[in-house]
Amino acid sequence: MDRTYVIGIDIGGTSAAVGLVNRDGQLLAQRKYLTAEHPQANWFVSAVQKGVADMLSELSPPYRVCGIGVGVPNGNYYTGRIEYAPNLPWKGVVDLAGLMQDALGYPVVLTNDANAAALGEKHFGAAKDRDDFIVITIGTGLGSGIVTNGKLIYGSSGFGGEVGHTTAIRDGRLCSCGKHGCLETYVSARGLRQNFFDQLAQSSVPSAWRNRPQGEISARTVFEAAHAGDEAAIAAFDYTGRILGRHLADVVAITSPEVIFLYGGVAEAGDLLLEPTRQALDAHLLQVFRGRVRVEASQLEGKSAAILGAAALAWDELCRDIEEHESA
Amino acid sequence: MDRTYVIGIDIGGTSAAVGLVNRDGQLLAQRKYLTAEHPQANWFVSAVQKGVADMLSELSPPYRVCGIGVGVPNGNYYTGRIEYAPNLPWKGVVDLAGLMQDALGYPVVLTNDANAAALGEKHFGAAKDRDDFIVITIGTGLGSGIVTNGKLIYGSSGFGGEVGHTTAIRDGRLCSCGKHGCLETYVSARGLRQNFFDQLAQSSVPSAWRNRPQGEISARTVFEAAHAGDEAAIAAFDYTGRILGRHLADVVAITSPEVIFLYGGVAEAGDLLLEPTRQALDAHLLQVFRGRVRVEASQLEGKSAAILGAAALAWDELCRDIEEHESA
Repeated sequence: MDRTYVIGIDIGGTSAAVGLVNRDGQLLAQRKYLTAEHPQANWFVSAVQKGVADMLSELSPPYRVCGIGVGVPNGNYYTGRIEYAPNLPWKGVVDLAGLMQDALGYPVVLTNDANAAALGEKHFGAAKDRDDFIVITIGTGLGSGIVTNGKLIYGSSGFGGEVGHTTAIRDGRLCSCGKHGCLETYVSARGLRQNFFDQLAQSSVPSAWRNRPQGEISARTVFEAAHAGDEAAIAAFDYTGRILGRHLADVVAITSPEVIFLYGGVAEAGDLLLEPTRQALDAHLLQVFRGRVRVEASQLEGKSAAILGAAALAWDELCRDIEEHESA
Repeated sequence: MDRTYVIGIDIGGTSAAVGLVNRDGQLLAQRKYLTAEHPQANWFVSAVQKGVADMLSELSPPYRVCGIGVGVPNGNYYTGRIEYAPNLPWKGVVDLAGLMQDALGYPVVLTNDANAAALGEKHFGAAKDRDDFIVITIGTGLGSGIVTNGKLIYGSSGFGGEVGHTTAIRDGRLCSCGKHGCLETYVSARGLRQNFFDQLAQSSVPSAWRNRPQGEISARTVFEAAHAGDEAAIAAFDYTGRILGRHLADVVAITSPEVIFLYGGVAEAGDLLLEPTRQALDAHLLQVFRGRVRVEASQLEGKSAAILGAAALAWDELCRDIEEHESA
């Protein structure tokens, strides 16, 4: 029986999850964290250290852990560092791979959270055998993992695939990255919430939410209101999808994917977001791309694509020797 | 002595060139054509057939031609077809590779003109040994060849890398592709000319060109006027570069190149275009990319990068058997 495992870690702006994953991509155990509760990166690493020890204590020996894969916003695959992540409490440049390796004693490989989701989709999801696809993760922020010729685009800096910080509306909303009009300011949990407020302010459609303070309204509220038939909430999703779709038309012109998968909290709204996205994409596509690209929901449930993707990265890069040794 | 050759063909909106290229990337002979003089694709193929026969008649036998590589706007690498090229006289879908193969009797491989320029830069120019770079060709239109992980991005459709038809200004100028505000409408020979007229209309700087009819003014005129110190012409280049630079900041966020090479007629203006492009790029780059990307002029003179790139494609894909046979 195979007793070799990796640790897959998915860190988002709001929450983080650490999972124990086997060679078949099964998530055997996981621990969850609220990112903001760890204002310093080494506090987070300590919490992960405890969680991993906890999960491993439930395994009966002998077993082996060959490494840790991490997906994190602004994570640099080449250096193992997080650099200037606007949606994380850890500012500046943080050597997260180094901190983890020192604390846990296993080798660590790290990438962008959206890249990890794309690897998860390719290894265990709907992108199996696909060489040209994009995963857009829509949560606190908006990330993207872009695969062309069968490989993730890292680029020379290690930071390729930052669609969330390309310009959706010139001189538009101020983004946490310091620029204006980034796609993420319109298409994300924060963006959706703002779009809802804009709908309430700009239209006179009836809404039960006009009488509530903004502080009580989250992206989750907008989702629930839309499901309950609130017109302003439905219009907010419609606007969000239209901004996303017309922007994706430009991304398609650059990398020409076969499928764009939407993943993450906001994407779980399903057709509320998918339909206006598809319509706007079709309306703005260059002729040669029409009918050649689909927009689909990720087929990996909940938050697990990024954990599984981070685990897949660890299997690929840290467990090869073990596999070769075992098969020899 | 090596007597094997390929034919490299570069087709642009204004002009086309056909060259005889040896294994070292030397252009031994070439013939030039005006694209618009061949309103039908098969007329152009006949002209090329004659030109190739002409060039080959100057070689002393024995020699071999192992194939033809073509770079053409909207050329599809996968199908050998040109599809809906807005800047060519040949409308709809044209099976150019098929027509050439039938007429000339050699195998044909075809790609986008900008992809061909990128291959030329990688095989024979300044991008040797680089895995992440972009070539932007600025002529009649604006094309781009994007290399990541050492390979051209074709995408699932074969049309990846169409930066010219991504949106620089939302609801901006009408493009020949039918969309509005495409980068190409501002950054191209046509775009530069229009930018010059806008400068003349919007500012009161003195210019000798205020008294000339628009029909007398070409992109070439704007270049010569700028060199002669005409303020409106200099401002037109400045505006062109600023639109290009801020737009490239978004492209960098997607593919993170180490260098962006500018190539083609308009790019030959050098610092007039390069300087405002670099400044606007730096001003709009996301923090993680700052200082990590350069904008340079192509180092392949004149129009030869695209011919050499088309030739490189032919060597790679059509001459392998011959090379293996010879080395055996």
